[in-house]
Amino acid sequence: MLPDVNSLVVSAGRKKTTTNDLIVIASLVDRVPNLGGLCRTCEVLGVRDFVLSSLRVTEEKDFVSLSVSAEKWINVLEIKPFQLVEYVKQLKLEGYTVVGAEQTASSQPLNHFTFPKKSALILGHEKEGIPVELIQHLDVCVEVPQEGIIRSMNVHVTGAIFIWEYARQQMGLSHVR
Amino acid sequence: MLPDVNSLVVSAGRKKTTTNDLIVIASLVDRVPNLGGLCRTCEVLGVRDFVLSSLRVTEEKDFVSLSVSAEKWINVLEIKPFQLVEYVKQLKLEGYTVVGAEQTASSQPLNHFTFPKKSALILGHEKEGIPVELIQHLDVCVEVPQEGIIRSMNVHVTGAIFIWEYARQQMGLSHVR
Repeated sequence: MLPDVNSLVVSAGRKKTTTNDLIVIASLVDRVPNLGGLCRTCEVLGVRDFVLSSLRVTEEKDFVSLSVSAEKWINVLEIKPFQLVEYVKQLKLEGYTVVGAEQTASSQPLNHFTFPKKSALILGHEKEGIPVELIQHLDVCVEVPQEGIIRSMNVHVTGAIFIWEYARQQMGLSHVR
Repeated sequence: MLPDVNSLVVSAGRKKTTTNDLIVIASLVDRVPNLGGLCRTCEVLGVRDFVLSSLRVTEEKDFVSLSVSAEKWINVLEIKPFQLVEYVKQLKLEGYTVVGAEQTASSQPLNHFTFPKKSALILGHEKEGIPVELIQHLDVCVEVPQEGIIRSMNVHVTGAIFIWEYARQQMGLSHVR
């Protein structure tokens, strides 16, 4: 049974308002510098919730040096990898489209994908990506089209490009910013 | 006088073909992990030339561990910071639009900017950005619109978002990929 997600919010309530409704789930990401960097990028681009496998990682030196205190200004949740399937089911019930950033035979190219406003993005482990058992519960897998001989990008960079793409599309819809 | 840029190509000729005509200039970027990471991202997204202040940085441990050998598959050029004004002038004569990734009072938001096919992107120093003396020689400054309380992104992430945006726009134009 999944613990009440609201009880896991590290910050004492929303620190700032954001017009976005994007959740970035980094519970599978292993390297602390990637997590710290992602936290900063999420905060800057207005992500609503940033999900980690453990809140304690936010106290690590390598996290703090790369997050530049972003964890103070964004909601940080804790969902352990074994809880992800339940969490994904819950998000879908709440109307979220759950998107995996993963290269699969049926992945949609990012430049052809339109993010719903209520989107949750799952990032994979640096080496192993997103496990098959989780992928089957996602709504869609999306990948950045690549030209290079090297066939993968750093997970922080992949996350940043997806988050930018979400933000860009939402800006285009709202014409607010 | 600027040395012949062609003489500075580190690789023995073009290692692979790319349909893109984007040059990424990282001569002002200071931290080696950022440079290694940028090299990987440039290679994966099909950047034509990657410009460093010194080719020797490609031999450093922190570069190699983050570039995952990307420097073998992309043209790497050496342009020292003091040569940048001359280099920018030369690029403009060759028909390039020179874009600075920088927050200024007159920067265009990235979501409203259309990259010409022949574009050169200049990234700034991690702390000091792009010096004013160089900015005045650029065609335009462009910035990622930000929502956060934290007011800046990591330079590798900024570069990745710009490069993705260039690639995305070119895909839309060519419908090739």
